[in-house]
Amino acid sequence: MSGMNKTSFFQALVSNVWFERFIITAIVLNAITLALETYPAVMTSIGPTLLVIDKLFLAVFVSELVLRISVFRLSFFRSGWNWFDFSVVFVTLLPLLGIAGLGNVSALRAVRILRLLSVVPSFRDVLSGIGRALMGSFAVMCVLSVILYVCAVLSVKFFRAASPEHFADLDNALFTLFQIMTLDAWSDVVRPLMSVYPWAGLFFIGFIVTTVFVLLSIIIGVASSAINQPESDRKERDLNEKLDALIASLRK
Amino acid sequence: MSGMNKTSFFQALVSNVWFERFIITAIVLNAITLALETYPAVMTSIGPTLLVIDKLFLAVFVSELVLRISVFRLSFFRSGWNWFDFSVVFVTLLPLLGIAGLGNVSALRAVRILRLLSVVPSFRDVLSGIGRALMGSFAVMCVLSVILYVCAVLSVKFFRAASPEHFADLDNALFTLFQIMTLDAWSDVVRPLMSVYPWAGLFFIGFIVTTVFVLLSIIIGVASSAINQPESDRKERDLNEKLDALIASLRK
Amino acid sequence: MSGMNKTSFFQALVSNVWFERFIITAIVLNAITLALETYPAVMTSIGPTLLVIDKLFLAVFVSELVLRISVFRLSFFRSGWNWFDFSVVFVTLLPLLGIAGLGNVSALRAVRILRLLSVVPSFRDVLSGIGRALMGSFAVMCVLSVILYVCAVLSVKFFRAASPEHFADLDNALFTLFQIMTLDAWSDVVRPLMSVYPWAGLFFIGFIVTTVFVLLSIIIGVASSAINQPESDRKERDLNEKLDALIASLRK
Amino acid sequence: MSGMNKTSFFQALVSNVWFERFIITAIVLNAITLALETYPAVMTSIGPTLLVIDKLFLAVFVSELVLRISVFRLSFFRSGWNWFDFSVVFVTLLPLLGIAGLGNVSALRAVRILRLLSVVPSFRDVLSGIGRALMGSFAVMCVLSVILYVCAVLSVKFFRAASPEHFADLDNALFTLFQIMTLDAWSDVVRPLMSVYPWAGLFFIGFIVTTVFVLLSIIIGVASSAINQPESDRKERDLNEKLDALIASLRK
Repeated sequence: MSGMNKTSFFQALVSNVWFERFIITAIVLNAITLALETYPAVMTSIGPTLLVIDKLFLAVFVSELVLRISVFRLSFFRSGWNWFDFSVVFVTLLPLLGIAGLGNVSALRAVRILRLLSVVPSFRDVLSGIGRALMGSFAVMCVLSVILYVCAVLSVKFFRAASPEHFADLDNALFTLFQIMTLDAWSDVVRPLMSVYPWAGLFFIGFIVTTVFVLLSIIIGVASSAINQPESDRKERDLNEKLDALIASLRK
Repeated sequence: MSGMNKTSFFQALVSNVWFERFIITAIVLNAITLALETYPAVMTSIGPTLLVIDKLFLAVFVSELVLRISVFRLSFFRSGWNWFDFSVVFVTLLPLLGIAGLGNVSALRAVRILRLLSVVPSFRDVLSGIGRALMGSFAVMCVLSVILYVCAVLSVKFFRAASPEHFADLDNALFTLFQIMTLDAWSDVVRPLMSVYPWAGLFFIGFIVTTVFVLLSIIIGVASSAINQPESDRKERDLNEKLDALIASLRK
Repeated sequence: MSGMNKTSFFQALVSNVWFERFIITAIVLNAITLALETYPAVMTSIGPTLLVIDKLFLAVFVSELVLRISVFRLSFFRSGWNWFDFSVVFVTLLPLLGIAGLGNVSALRAVRILRLLSVVPSFRDVLSGIGRALMGSFAVMCVLSVILYVCAVLSVKFFRAASPEHFADLDNALFTLFQIMTLDAWSDVVRPLMSVYPWAGLFFIGFIVTTVFVLLSIIIGVASSAINQPESDRKERDLNEKLDALIASLRK
Repeated sequence: MSGMNKTSFFQALVSNVWFERFIITAIVLNAITLALETYPAVMTSIGPTLLVIDKLFLAVFVSELVLRISVFRLSFFRSGWNWFDFSVVFVTLLPLLGIAGLGNVSALRAVRILRLLSVVPSFRDVLSGIGRALMGSFAVMCVLSVILYVCAVLSVKFFRAASPEHFADLDNALFTLFQIMTLDAWSDVVRPLMSVYPWAGLFFIGFIVTTVFVLLSIIIGVASSAINQPESDRKERDLNEKLDALIASLRK
């Protein structure tokens, strides 16, 4: 009975709105201490204190996770968001494991701030919305990948000799084509090639027109569906309900 | 009674459409004199005259504000637009206070031209529309800020050593990440990093894809809702009214 | 009677579809000769021939305009598109007037190709659609202009000393701010300023966020309304007609 | 009878879902070997093996095409997608023809990966959707081309002397104007011109505003119609069917 009481006490604690607020406050405060760590002047004066405080916050997050796992047990792992929390805390624990050779792994502690996204309900809704919309344009993204891949292989074979710093191998060419697709300094890449291969201009204009087109169609599609869908669905449902009521009243 | 007459005279004056037009004309003329002040050749020939004219315009704007406050008294401060006018005139008065050390504070006089936005009704509608829509995507903006913040902390810790001019501290890294998010010269920032850390390319491509995505979803959401909402709402209302009338006539 | 016959003959000619096709062909052929003129190699071999052909085309366009004016008389000037044709041919005649000192004015002959936009009906529809939509967002554009203007005056006063090549006077500052608004190489303008005024970064980030926002809201608003409006209007009309028929049949 | 059996066997084979999956697998594996070919280190160790494997894949694709042509005969050429497959395999066979002087023509083998787009049904839908939408904005694209063409001719004549590397002839000017239209490093092109012709700034700002506007209206129009059309059409159809049912039930 004492065990059951303890469980139900923890269950009440975990579901309490003040518990949620406490965790949000802890994340925000930890975000501030992590920011302070980036200023060399602050680190030289109160660096060790900050690192101790950071360990305390880590203890808070680990305890919260252990508490929630002990309350919900296996059903904890049924929610995608819980997996997200679990991974974030896990990544955050990596530096403690003291893996040599991964010197800068302590930077990963900053990943903890991402937990804000799963704790605040309205942020979770935003991400779910975007995620759902991304699923919807999965096919368009595959088409974009195929085009990018083919153009990368083609450009390595055509332009490696003339511009080895941009098209040395597939990795390099994919990065360069991504840069061209974002329209950043693409003329600096293409103009030198055009003095060797005059048709290179046509190749890249074709690439830009095609990919920017497909890319924008993904973004616009996802953005508009993520945002307008609920509103548009509500309107349609309202209208349909009204019509159904009308038909029903007519039958009578 | 004479006091009441005076008040009602001022009230009529303030609400008069010609008073509004006079203020708009004054703002436009002041915008022209402020523009003339930016040409060194003009300043050397008629500079002192311009500054006197500018003081006159300031007197006009201060009088208008005092008049409106004396007419509406405390209810003046109930409207957000009045607070906007009040702040603009206040900022504009700062240079007169002769605060030493803030030499260039006289430049703030240009802020006065912003009063056009609050005086012309259709401009006010545009801003209200955008403002309302911004409220609607507040959660998306918070998500974007969290992502930006986490990536800034991470990039300071990872890339400070390799590229101190871009990732010296959190301020610096936030500015650099904002620049990368606008896709301006991002490859110039990332390519040198990639020769030290080959995985930096993946980090920034992930950052760009995520933020440009969230960013565009804000912009498109706000823009489309700000502009299409009234139209779409009107159509829905029309349709619903028609259906309601239909149901009512059926009941009869 | 012969005069009347002549008029009705010209009227039939001007309205004839083959007359329209003849004019379109003439414009397209003239576009080709104008393009050939831009290649120095072509000019040295058949330059004089091209210029004679160009004069012939000019004669065709002037005759067509004179014909249409003589047929429609004053009612010719009632249509905006006729004014467009008239201006295009007029600008195109300027080089013939032999105005000295305007050496390169012969380049204006290329403007003639724009007549394609007014001759082909579907192109005219596109431009009317965009024009109508632009009217709709006139207020948003004014708001953008006011913000641009205030920021230009402010930046001249603040940054002229530190960066005279970008903020020398109002013209210069407006051009630079337009460049920043298009996100082209804006960090190259802003980073040097930030070493003098650390707050310059905030000023320009605020400027970019505000203007890109307003700008995109114009573009998206205009584009979507220009394109989706007819479709959306048609659907609404169809639905309303159906409901009206329903109500009418119920009354019976 | 044996001939008929053979045909119907091949017909069953070609329509079999496992045949489709086999072809998709072959394309994906070939994409991997083509990628490996771009790494010099891989080529020196297993280069000849990769080329033999590539020939095997080519044999597979040619056999598949021959099989499908032999089954469907002339009706094969009635589908646009079959023409696409035919062209892809044909381009891919070019290197085998051993045309001297076209050394790098072997790079064209990468084009084979594009067959993924025609084999996977959902990719085919995406492309059909975009294609249909592109048809819809054909007129807007023609308007954009006319504007680009006129501005290119004008800028050659005006700016050739001042900036021969950007406006040497029509080809060169069209490329430069495309670059300016994508807002990439446009200020680097325009600022030097402005020191010679101060009005060049206005010319290019006008060009940017006009083309970016028309361009975005194409992209947004196509993207939104390609994606939202089916959904919007479905809703309209549902609503209409409901109303039709209502009217029919009223008549009874």
